[in-house]
Amino acid sequence: MAKKIEYGRFLHGGDYNPEQWLNRPDILKKDIEYFKEAHINTVSVGIFSWAVLEPEEGKYNLDWLEQIIDNLYKERIYTILATPSGARPKWMADKYPEVLRMDPDRTRRFFGGRHNHCYTSPVYREKVHAIDKLLSQRLGSHPGVILWHISNEFGGECYCPLCQQKFREWLKEKYGTIEKLNSSWCTTFWSHTYNSFDQIEAPSPKGEDALHALNLDWKRFVTDRTLDFIKEEISAIREGGSELPVTANLMYDYNGLDYKKFRDVLDVVSWDNYPGWHKKEEYLTAIDAGMQHDLMRSIKKQPFLLMESCPSATNWKPINKLKKPGMMLAASLQAVAHGSDSVLYFQLHQSQGASEKFHGAVIDHYGGDDTRVFKEVTEVGEALVKLQEVCGSQMKAPAAVLYDRENNWAIQDVQGPRNENMFYTEAVQKQYRALREQGLNVDVISMEHDLSDYKIVAAPMAYMFLDGYEKQLRTFAENGGTLVLTYWSGLVDGTDKCLLGGTPYGLMEAVGLRTEEIDALYDWEENFGIPENGNHLGITGTYTCKNLCELVKVSDAEVLMRYGKDFYAGRPVLTHKAYGKGHVYYVCADMEQAFYEDFYGRTVKEAGVQAPLEFVPAGVSVTLRENEAYQYLFIQNFAREPKAVPVPAGYEVLYGTEKEVLAPLETRILKRSK
Amino acid sequence: MAKKIEYGRFLHGGDYNPEQWLNRPDILKKDIEYFKEAHINTVSVGIFSWAVLEPEEGKYNLDWLEQIIDNLYKERIYTILATPSGARPKWMADKYPEVLRMDPDRTRRFFGGRHNHCYTSPVYREKVHAIDKLLSQRLGSHPGVILWHISNEFGGECYCPLCQQKFREWLKEKYGTIEKLNSSWCTTFWSHTYNSFDQIEAPSPKGEDALHALNLDWKRFVTDRTLDFIKEEISAIREGGSELPVTANLMYDYNGLDYKKFRDVLDVVSWDNYPGWHKKEEYLTAIDAGMQHDLMRSIKKQPFLLMESCPSATNWKPINKLKKPGMMLAASLQAVAHGSDSVLYFQLHQSQGASEKFHGAVIDHYGGDDTRVFKEVTEVGEALVKLQEVCGSQMKAPAAVLYDRENNWAIQDVQGPRNENMFYTEAVQKQYRALREQGLNVDVISMEHDLSDYKIVAAPMAYMFLDGYEKQLRTFAENGGTLVLTYWSGLVDGTDKCLLGGTPYGLMEAVGLRTEEIDALYDWEENFGIPENGNHLGITGTYTCKNLCELVKVSDAEVLMRYGKDFYAGRPVLTHKAYGKGHVYYVCADMEQAFYEDFYGRTVKEAGVQAPLEFVPAGVSVTLRENEAYQYLFIQNFAREPKAVPVPAGYEVLYGTEKEVLAPLETRILKRSK
Amino acid sequence: MAKKIEYGRFLHGGDYNPEQWLNRPDILKKDIEYFKEAHINTVSVGIFSWAVLEPEEGKYNLDWLEQIIDNLYKERIYTILATPSGARPKWMADKYPEVLRMDPDRTRRFFGGRHNHCYTSPVYREKVHAIDKLLSQRLGSHPGVILWHISNEFGGECYCPLCQQKFREWLKEKYGTIEKLNSSWCTTFWSHTYNSFDQIEAPSPKGEDALHALNLDWKRFVTDRTLDFIKEEISAIREGGSELPVTANLMYDYNGLDYKKFRDVLDVVSWDNYPGWHKKEEYLTAIDAGMQHDLMRSIKKQPFLLMESCPSATNWKPINKLKKPGMMLAASLQAVAHGSDSVLYFQLHQSQGASEKFHGAVIDHYGGDDTRVFKEVTEVGEALVKLQEVCGSQMKAPAAVLYDRENNWAIQDVQGPRNENMFYTEAVQKQYRALREQGLNVDVISMEHDLSDYKIVAAPMAYMFLDGYEKQLRTFAENGGTLVLTYWSGLVDGTDKCLLGGTPYGLMEAVGLRTEEIDALYDWEENFGIPENGNHLGITGTYTCKNLCELVKVSDAEVLMRYGKDFYAGRPVLTHKAYGKGHVYYVCADMEQAFYEDFYGRTVKEAGVQAPLEFVPAGVSVTLRENEAYQYLFIQNFAREPKAVPVPAGYEVLYGTEKEVLAPLETRILKRSK
Ligand SMILES: [Zn+2]
Ligand SMILES: [Zn+2]
Ligand SMILES: [Zn+2]
Repeated sequence: MAKKIEYGRFLHGGDYNPEQWLNRPDILKKDIEYFKEAHINTVSVGIFSWAVLEPEEGKYNLDWLEQIIDNLYKERIYTILATPSGARPKWMADKYPEVLRMDPDRTRRFFGGRHNHCYTSPVYREKVHAIDKLLSQRLGSHPGVILWHISNEFGGECYCPLCQQKFREWLKEKYGTIEKLNSSWCTTFWSHTYNSFDQIEAPSPKGEDALHALNLDWKRFVTDRTLDFIKEEISAIREGGSELPVTANLMYDYNGLDYKKFRDVLDVVSWDNYPGWHKKEEYLTAIDAGMQHDLMRSIKKQPFLLMESCPSATNWKPINKLKKPGMMLAASLQAVAHGSDSVLYFQLHQSQGASEKFHGAVIDHYGGDDTRVFKEVTEVGEALVKLQEVCGSQMKAPAAVLYDRENNWAIQDVQGPRNENMFYTEAVQKQYRALREQGLNVDVISMEHDLSDYKIVAAPMAYMFLDGYEKQLRTFAENGGTLVLTYWSGLVDGTDKCLLGGTPYGLMEAVGLRTEEIDALYDWEENFGIPENGNHLGITGTYTCKNLCELVKVSDAEVLMRYGKDFYAGRPVLTHKAYGKGHVYYVCADMEQAFYEDFYGRTVKEAGVQAPLEFVPAGVSVTLRENEAYQYLFIQNFAREPKAVPVPAGYEVLYGTEKEVLAPLETRILKRSK
Repeated sequence: MAKKIEYGRFLHGGDYNPEQWLNRPDILKKDIEYFKEAHINTVSVGIFSWAVLEPEEGKYNLDWLEQIIDNLYKERIYTILATPSGARPKWMADKYPEVLRMDPDRTRRFFGGRHNHCYTSPVYREKVHAIDKLLSQRLGSHPGVILWHISNEFGGECYCPLCQQKFREWLKEKYGTIEKLNSSWCTTFWSHTYNSFDQIEAPSPKGEDALHALNLDWKRFVTDRTLDFIKEEISAIREGGSELPVTANLMYDYNGLDYKKFRDVLDVVSWDNYPGWHKKEEYLTAIDAGMQHDLMRSIKKQPFLLMESCPSATNWKPINKLKKPGMMLAASLQAVAHGSDSVLYFQLHQSQGASEKFHGAVIDHYGGDDTRVFKEVTEVGEALVKLQEVCGSQMKAPAAVLYDRENNWAIQDVQGPRNENMFYTEAVQKQYRALREQGLNVDVISMEHDLSDYKIVAAPMAYMFLDGYEKQLRTFAENGGTLVLTYWSGLVDGTDKCLLGGTPYGLMEAVGLRTEEIDALYDWEENFGIPENGNHLGITGTYTCKNLCELVKVSDAEVLMRYGKDFYAGRPVLTHKAYGKGHVYYVCADMEQAFYEDFYGRTVKEAGVQAPLEFVPAGVSVTLRENEAYQYLFIQNFAREPKAVPVPAGYEVLYGTEKEVLAPLETRILKRSK
Repeated sequence: MAKKIEYGRFLHGGDYNPEQWLNRPDILKKDIEYFKEAHINTVSVGIFSWAVLEPEEGKYNLDWLEQIIDNLYKERIYTILATPSGARPKWMADKYPEVLRMDPDRTRRFFGGRHNHCYTSPVYREKVHAIDKLLSQRLGSHPGVILWHISNEFGGECYCPLCQQKFREWLKEKYGTIEKLNSSWCTTFWSHTYNSFDQIEAPSPKGEDALHALNLDWKRFVTDRTLDFIKEEISAIREGGSELPVTANLMYDYNGLDYKKFRDVLDVVSWDNYPGWHKKEEYLTAIDAGMQHDLMRSIKKQPFLLMESCPSATNWKPINKLKKPGMMLAASLQAVAHGSDSVLYFQLHQSQGASEKFHGAVIDHYGGDDTRVFKEVTEVGEALVKLQEVCGSQMKAPAAVLYDRENNWAIQDVQGPRNENMFYTEAVQKQYRALREQGLNVDVISMEHDLSDYKIVAAPMAYMFLDGYEKQLRTFAENGGTLVLTYWSGLVDGTDKCLLGGTPYGLMEAVGLRTEEIDALYDWEENFGIPENGNHLGITGTYTCKNLCELVKVSDAEVLMRYGKDFYAGRPVLTHKAYGKGHVYYVCADMEQAFYEDFYGRTVKEAGVQAPLEFVPAGVSVTLRENEAYQYLFIQNFAREPKAVPVPAGYEVLYGTEKEVLAPLETRILKRSK
């Protein structure tokens, strides 16, 4: 089913909207010259082009597009071809208002923006099907076309009657009987019992928005509805005769969709990466971007595509800073270091008008190649040529951090100890960062991922146990894994219904404790953990904790650290139990970053995991890609000072210098035979 | 009319939703065992149970409820029986959309939440009447049932045509002619003159929301409409044959209803108390909670019921902190100290799902009695058994602070010197706190309360004089009372229409001054008051003031303090006039707390009021309950340090130790014959 | 066409609503006595009086109004007569809902507030026409009436179908063909292409709100629609037979309308000035208010009227502070100093009710003349009598600052480097302030103003070049002017479409550079400018810059200052080129105020501009009015300390003392023959 993509070289290029310049052939011609100069070999076209492709209902005009693809292909520039469904023409919205979305208050939106369409509307699906099929028929076998780009940045949701009816069907399919739904959702509370599926309405601030199971199922439904729409688009493409692989460009930590469900629908994962470099220290931004790269890579455990990135400053953040010299190259190579087989930009040629006209572009309104941005893009192009053999190589990770979207939804919706912020994502990132700073490849996984290949699994704040996830965690530890659990774990089942009899549910024996209470701290409060003399890890540091402090009753576990103050001073903060062939750790509070660095420095060794570098200086990022013959070691210095990283034995330098010292933002890529 | 409640013992227990566990008889059985263990003698059932009581229209099922009440009564556990009108079943909203509220923009809400119903809808009233009557018929004479709990936490408002029509009738009843309304509301302004009552619309942000008299009358109407609905519920209960007393649980400083109007409708006042302990110093929270207890007690000047409180952490505040050991006992006994005859919790058994599943409960999801919370609940139960003779005793207060809801509404709506915040509630609380720190019982009263029993009345920021209130204040002082007035007093009549000819209206002679201007200070500004040499109170301290500084022209009063800076340096801040047999003080600015403590330390003596303790250490709270035979003196240390409070002569210890020192959160209750 | 107003004396008085007191003839009588006492010679009546003028449809009642005007005129008090269209009676909204506005979500507003009417509705226009004509017929030739006051503070917009249809017609008129509109608006972006004008909808947050050209044209249309409505009102007045001049009271920096378009419609400009004195240092507030006075004066380059000001504290700001003694006099004379021929207040007699009842007034609820406010109003009246000869005199300015409303709209809507705030108005004010501190009269102009009379033109952040504005700027410099340009200039044309080929568009040669990139700084960041040794202006100071730092490539210009840090350290911050007979300066970054003071201290001299005073102390404001015979020099000390300003030779003192030192808030007015 899944189509393989064999480009043979890194894709370099990005979003291109030549339909904006059809009356300026001089510009279109010059663009291609510039592309070649900058080693650009790939463009994404057709995104939001519907009004030009079908200016009136049923009146299609694809000639210009074919011409563009031809002209590019003549210069060995590939095309990623988009379906235009991300924005519909005005005539369609006017004639068929049902294609527009309805808001949570059940009023219809007007024409405007993008992504403003109902995923259920039969008319919209029919129109999308027709144009997608036509594109496939006309251009899907063009030798210059290498990949389908389905719509653009899927997101949002529709509350129209058609969508709500689909939601009811989805619920009936899931629960079978209304009694089962009532019991799973605990609708007795506040007399919310349903007599039939017909009575169910989507959540709304004008009605019900605090029935957590309803909210959660609605979010799941939205993901499924979106995927159903994507499948419809793919089916049109296949009907049109094209067998090319498909992707859809995903977004940074997007909370509206559960991307793990996209795994079997997309042939290749791609995403749009816009870090806010230079807002905080670059190293911190690199950790954040790195985690997203790893999250995207982990969806299919395959190389992915960086589909969009900004060659200069964006124009949609509150403050859109220039990238300092070298930043764009380092950020581009970071994507490759984490498994990307491309560096693609939004946008190749800046729009002359409308809302993105000041978004950074390879070619700007000035229109010359004598700009800093153009020169830096060219440098990226040159680097990718040098790295060509790395393209397609894989990544293996000894450690994984659980970051499940459904769990995140449930935690964000919870009425619990801290309604201001439970800091779930931050808790995940602390663990990710500490593991990465050991120099390890790290997967960022969901509850659907198999755990058996990992040596270490961190599952912070695993509040919701989907489908008996507790058993998977237990088995992982029994079989020799090091499992790190934390406060606020194992409280509810997949419908956000509390698990009775003690928590972490199903793991109290494995962890050797049960939780009793959880204290919420104001932003200005903190507690701290004091190490127990002679703890088996040898921890000697004292670390602060904030936000959430769980109180546990230990039945059978070693206490390694204890709270330092408040009425629970002396109660456990960190415990350990040797369980089966493995280890189970439990962190009771939201500890500071330094704790996790100390902790993983010790537990990685205990778990017998070997990192490629013996010592990783602060601010330096290390990843390993490999193919059947070689290992490629990426070393990047994201610190603001030079860092010494000697080339380890057995490696040769594929990219960068052999000097011991890496300058800020410098990248070195090493290679060795396996 | 008013039914007396004779429980004979403090009620201990709280909200209980056994309908959530009907398929778990083991849990229901275990619950009763736990209740007995914790000295729980009362449960509130039926709140939000409509969907289980009437799962389909006209198909009632009360058997389970009777069974529950029977089972509890067998164990001498009483039932407070709720009417289910706080939330309606889905079938009703679907079949009769009119039962749902309309928002201020005149759009109908969807089903969801609770309290989401029109108080006017004939259908809703009919359905409520039917089920209430049936409950009364079936269970209203059950020996285990002791009290009716009407709906739950009444609040909110409906803007549907039916409610608007009632509003027009209400206005016609109040004003008689449209000319009178126009003149009272000053509708000439901005051409808002009405030609007939039919033209009047409720306030709306999409229409008129700045006609203060309209806003004010709408708020009054909402209270009257709510009371009309409550009376409808009571009439159904009476039709059903039950003669038990009724209550409705009120809320902390709730601004949507004027609770003083509930006095004659409820047989007993009850309220739900959820202080945010440990956010600031406990003593400050205790002052705040104490004022609310006194406000509730003052409605009927009778003992009240603490209907809900949290045995652990809530789940609906931004930060839901654990109560530190001893806090729950101290808070429970504080309610008793201020006149409560109960300590009831929300909730006895934690819900398994929906939005309150993590709200603290006596029995939690873990389900055992070996928890800190359960043990502390049991301690409260034991304390209440020990205090049984105090139950039903009364409180007398020599001092009162005016805190009128209509005045608050008017001040909040005013377009005046400070639109950000006039700090009315804070001004009231400063006076309340200073009087309480003299060790006095203090009533918190409205403009409807009679003043003749008080020695001291503080009426801060009495902006609106309802129905000639100036005469009551004048008479109070003439007859020997000490009257404390402040800036921003006596400016408007009951329709928020300015009183002409000088302010404080009707009191210029009694106070000996008139106001000229009022200065508003930015948050970063302050002024201060300097004592006049030889002022008759002997004040020597200098105190800061903020927010509002009134400039007055003294005709016939002693100036005790003067402003220290700005262009009004030297003008009066504090004045006094001996008026009739009494004293009238006028405070011109929003003085700091320390001023009021100094001031009342002197004026209480001047007024000849005797406090039960000669010296009250900072952070210690003292109240006095009494019955025909005994006085009960409650002393609670809410400070974070131990405080010495020797047992005064003539008292014996009823609860607590005889040691001179009270530990933090410790309570001592003394007793003496009258 | 334009009617001259010849009052012969300064107007002193203000808004008066006697219809609120028709049942209190004693008050109306007393009012006139007070007016005379305070030298009040003008009242504005009829504002919002529609419900009294036409209490039922077609039933008019103007007798009371005629009576009022008669009574006033008998005492030589003039009347400014308002049309009542600012608020409509309830009966009209009930019978003809179309007169009410629709919100951007296309829902109709309810009756309420003011300014809540559709400017297109034929019914509304018909009703307005009828009453305006009747007022003109009955009172337009009354000898006491001197000026028409059209409606009140025009503002807001309507999204009803009638208005949208007018918008489509407006667009068709402007663009001719839909192809031209599509091309100008760049609608290819996101497939927003229109097939016909019928498809166009007004911007809405529920539809399209990010198509900048649409937003911009909508704002322009709103101004034109408002003007069309005003013309309708004027035509009714003329039909009624009155030939008196007309005005409409404008508002402080109002962003909803482009006041420059009012130039040819109003006979005299008037505006309502409510500075927040004493919030920051008075001098800063004076700069701000002064700029607005100059903006209003520059619309017609004629004396204007101060139509409203507050004699005491307002009631609609977050904090409404009292004016300190002398502040009201100083603020009133500041208006005169900048070209006002009036000092008028809102309000003469305080309303007894509704939302403005606590707005400051000459006569307050107390109702006496023994108040500080009344005395200070009287002082203003006396001062105006003394200054009578100044009335009608003009102002000439050697310098102008460009502050164009269309440019402001475009910058505020831009998705660009800083979406939080581009600080356009602040950038204008920095330049205005620095020029004013040289003691110069300064015009505040739009892109429609002719530049040929100026010696210095500052055009900061001239992002949008309307209709070849670059040519005007170039010509101004060529002819000998000193032109000061800055970062973020010349990027787009009048439809917000980017100008290709380099910026500042059309001026690269004149400035001697082109821009390359622009860096946005976070609020906590700053850079600084270091002077180049030997720069021709002799600048030696180092100055900080914030927010925006442009990077330019100099082709042919002197670099006077360079950046001090970041990766662009050493690149130009300030450049100069001698161009034609003039000078072109380019400021690359958002420099601090002190830079501009230094800079203009030098460039004013270079431009050969002579100020009336040789030295202007900090905090002192200097302006010059003149008539055919005399020059009047206004000197006001807005600093908080006394300032020495010797009377220069040749002047005599018309108002104030001859002492060298001016006390804080003191005003001195000098006079000399020309
Ligand atoms: Zn839909
Ligand atoms: Zn209603
Ligand atoms: Zn309209």
